[in-house]
Amino acid sequence: MAEFEYTVTGMTCGHCEASVRGEVSKIAGVQDVRVSAASGSLTIVASGEVADDAVLAAVDEAGYSAVRA
Amino acid sequence: MAEFEYTVTGMTCGHCEASVRGEVSKIAGVQDVRVSAASGSLTIVASGEVADDAVLAAVDEAGYSAVRA
Repeated sequence: MAEFEYTVTGMTCGHCEASVRGEVSKIAGVQDVRVSAASGSLTIVASGEVADDAVLAAVDEAGYSAVRA
Repeated sequence: MAEFEYTVTGMTCGHCEASVRGEVSKIAGVQDVRVSAASGSLTIVASGEVADDAVLAAVDEAGYSAVRA
């Protein structure tokens, strides 16, 4: 397992967290997603490498912006 | 048509607005629901009277608190 850390801007509440979690969870190989609106942190636990592009696109799809932390 | 105004606390984003709108829209007689997280306003357009209890319960179900404005 590997962990990948991102910072997400724009999340304000649990619904926002759920939106991000829902989109990021769809990425192949992702085993767990931890997300906090309060801190803006997004931690992805995956069985292998996860492409930055896929993460940024998933967060964008949810309506927010992410950068690699 | 009659309009009923409430103030809702705790909404932070469009997801919150959608949650409130979804629950309040289920109340019998409700024709339109306008809700703003920015101002905390909830306006209900209904074909007749809408019981305060029903509105407060619907907003509570969505996870927020309302008072008659």
